[in-house]
Amino acid sequence: DRTLKVFTLNSNPDLALDIAKQIGVPLGECSVSTFSDGEIQINIEESVRGCDVYVVQSTSAPVNRHIMELLIMIDALKRASAATVNVVIPYYGYARQDRKAKPREPITAKLVADILQVAGATRVITIDLHAPQIQGFFNIPVDQLVGVPILGDYWESKDLDEVVIVSPDHGGVSRARQLAERLKAPIAIIDKRRPRPNVAEVMNIVGDVKGKTAILIDDMIDTAGTISLAADALIKNGATEVYACCTHAVLSGPAMERIGQSPIKDLVVTNTIPLPEEKITDKLTILSVAPLISEAIIRVHEQLPVSVLFD
Amino acid sequence: DRTLKVFTLNSNPDLALDIAKQIGVPLGECSVSTFSDGEIQINIEESVRGCDVYVVQSTSAPVNRHIMELLIMIDALKRASAATVNVVIPYYGYARQDRKAKPREPITAKLVADILQVAGATRVITIDLHAPQIQGFFNIPVDQLVGVPILGDYWESKDLDEVVIVSPDHGGVSRARQLAERLKAPIAIIDKRRPRPNVAEVMNIVGDVKGKTAILIDDMIDTAGTISLAADALIKNGATEVYACCTHAVLSGPAMERIGQSPIKDLVVTNTIPLPEEKITDKLTILSVAPLISEAIIRVHEQLPVSVLFD
Ligand SMILES: Nc1ncnc2c1ncn2[C@@H]1O[C@H](COP(=O)(O)O)[C@@H](O)[C@H]1O
Ligand SMILES: Nc1ncnc2c1ncn2[C@@H]1O[C@H](COP(=O)(O)O)[C@@H](O)[C@H]1O
Repeated sequence: DRTLKVFTLNSNPDLALDIAKQIGVPLGECSVSTFSDGEIQINIEESVRGCDVYVVQSTSAPVNRHIMELLIMIDALKRASAATVNVVIPYYGYARQDRKAKPREPITAKLVADILQVAGATRVITIDLHAPQIQGFFNIPVDQLVGVPILGDYWESKDLDEVVIVSPDHGGVSRARQLAERLKAPIAIIDKRRPRPNVAEVMNIVGDVKGKTAILIDDMIDTAGTISLAADALIKNGATEVYACCTHAVLSGPAMERIGQSPIKDLVVTNTIPLPEEKITDKLTILSVAPLISEAIIRVHEQLPVSVLFD
Repeated sequence: DRTLKVFTLNSNPDLALDIAKQIGVPLGECSVSTFSDGEIQINIEESVRGCDVYVVQSTSAPVNRHIMELLIMIDALKRASAATVNVVIPYYGYARQDRKAKPREPITAKLVADILQVAGATRVITIDLHAPQIQGFFNIPVDQLVGVPILGDYWESKDLDEVVIVSPDHGGVSRARQLAERLKAPIAIIDKRRPRPNVAEVMNIVGDVKGKTAILIDDMIDTAGTISLAADALIKNGATEVYACCTHAVLSGPAMERIGQSPIKDLVVTNTIPLPEEKITDKLTILSVAPLISEAIIRVHEQLPVSVLFD
C-alpha cells in the first residue's frame, strides 16, 4: 500500500492535472525552471520516499528539452528513494526513427528507450506507439494504451450515415480495422504508388467509398500532407463527406493550412500533445485521454491488468 | 592502423574544422538538420566502418539540443560499425549539477555521463571539468585536458609587472596556484563570507594585492556576478589593474553588461564555447583550444599517453 503521487513536467500540465483529479490526488509539488545559461533546474518540493511516482510528460516539441526534463526528473526521483518511477508518455517522440531504413541512420526511438531506463524509469505508460515494436526496445514493463476506443465513442455519438473507415496508407490498416469493427463499418485503403521512378504518385483507393461518409484514421498527423491528399482522393472517388481522426496531433509546419484547405470537415484528435491557441479552429475537435490514463495508473498501482482497457 | 575521422555537430563547427585541419584530415561528411516537428535528423554521409571516429560537440547552450545531437550521432556511428566512438566535449554542460547539495536534487552531470555511455561512447576528451570527480561518473576512459597552459602562455606574452593571481573563491585555489607557478607569481584568494544570516556578504582578500596587477582566474564565467564583484574588491584593496581569464565563456544573461561595467581591463577566454558576434567586444580576447585538442586526438589515436599535454 504505497502512496501514489503524480507529478507533471512542462509538456502537458493541463492533462496531468486532469489525471491527478480523476485519480483523486493533488499534483506533486515540483518546480521545473531554467538557469540563466539554459540548463534545466528541477526542485522536487515534497518527499517521495517509498512512493509510487507517476511523471506525466509527452516528448512532443520542444522534444529535446522535454526528453531532458524527463530524464533529470527520473534521476532526481530515483535518488530521492521513490519506490517506483513510472513515466507516463502520452506521445512518444522520435518514434518514426525506429529502424535503419538507410545505411548509417540512428535508431533514435531505441536510444530514447535506453536513456529513460539508465536514468531510472521502472515502467512506461504510453498511447499508440508509432510502431508497437518500440515496446521491445525497453527491458521494463510498457503499457501501450490505445486511442481507438476514444475516437470510436466520438464517432458513434455523431451517428453518421453510410460510414467507411479509411486508412491513408498500408501501415495503418489494422488501426482502421479496429475502428471499423467498433462502428460496424467497412474499410477502404489509400493505395499510393509510383508507377515509374520520377513520376508522380497515383492515389488508388482499394474499397468502396462512392456515396459514403469517409473517416480517415491515422496514429499521428504531422505536416498533414498524407491526410489532405487522401481526403482529396476520397472526394474525387465519390465520397460525399470526409472526416479525419488521429491520436497524436503533432500538426507541425504547414499542417493547419493544409487541413484548412482540404475537404476535411472535422479533424478529431486527442490531447496527448497540447495544442497552442492559434491551432485551435472550428474544424478541430479535441478529446481527452485523461480518463484512459488515470484508469491505467489506478490499475497499475493496484496491480491489476491494464489490458482490459483496450476493448 | 585504423582510419581517424573527425565529425562536427552544431555546437562548435569552426573549432572542429580547425582541429581537423591541424590533424590533417577533412571533416567527415554529415548533415545534422531538424524535421518539421523539431526532431533531430542526422545523416552520416560517408562510411565509418572500422574507423576511429572523433565527434566534436560542446554541451553548451542550447544544451538540451546539443546533448541530443551528440547522443543520436553516437547511436548512428555505433550502428554504422565505427570501431571506436570518441566524444570530444570541450565544454561539459550540466557540470555544476554534480552532487546533491539539497534533498531531492538530481545529479545531472552523472545522468549525462550515463546516457553518453549507453548511447555507445567509448572515450571522452574534455577540458577543465567543473569538478574533476566527474571523470569518475564514467566507466570509459576520460582525458581531461587543462586550459591553464593556454591562458598562462598568453599572460606570459603580455609581460605584465608585479602580477598576483587571484582565485575568486575557495574552490578555485588550486587552479590559481597552477597559473601562478607558470608565471612565477604569488596568489591571493577572495574570501567571501556572510558574517550573520541575512547580512550582505563581505569580500575579504587573503594575500597581498596592493599596488599589484591582479589576474583573476576561474574555470567558467557564467553570469559574471562573482568575477565582477571580485574585481571591485581587488580595486578597493589597492590593486592597480584587474584582468580576468577562464576556460569556458558561458557568458549568459547579464554577463556582458556586468563585465562592461566592471574594472576588468581584458577578459581572456578560450573557444570551448563559441561566442556569437554580439558578445565579442574590445575587452575580450579569445584563445583557441584547437592545438591542444588536435594534439590530444593524435596521441589517443597513436596510443600515446595524453598526460604529457598537461605541463
Ligand atoms: N520527425 C520526423 N518527421 C518526419 N519524418 C520523420 C521524422 N522522424 C523520422 N522520419 C522519417 O519517417 C520515416 C518513417 O516513417 P514511417 O514510415 O511512417 O514509419 C523514416 O524515413 C524517417 O526517416
Ligand atoms: N546552470 C546553472 N546555472 C547556475 N547555477 C547552477 C547551474 N547548475 C547548477 N547550479 C547550481 O550551482 C551550484 C553548484 O555550483 P558550484 O558550487 O560552483 O559547484 C549548485 O547549487 C547548483 O544548484
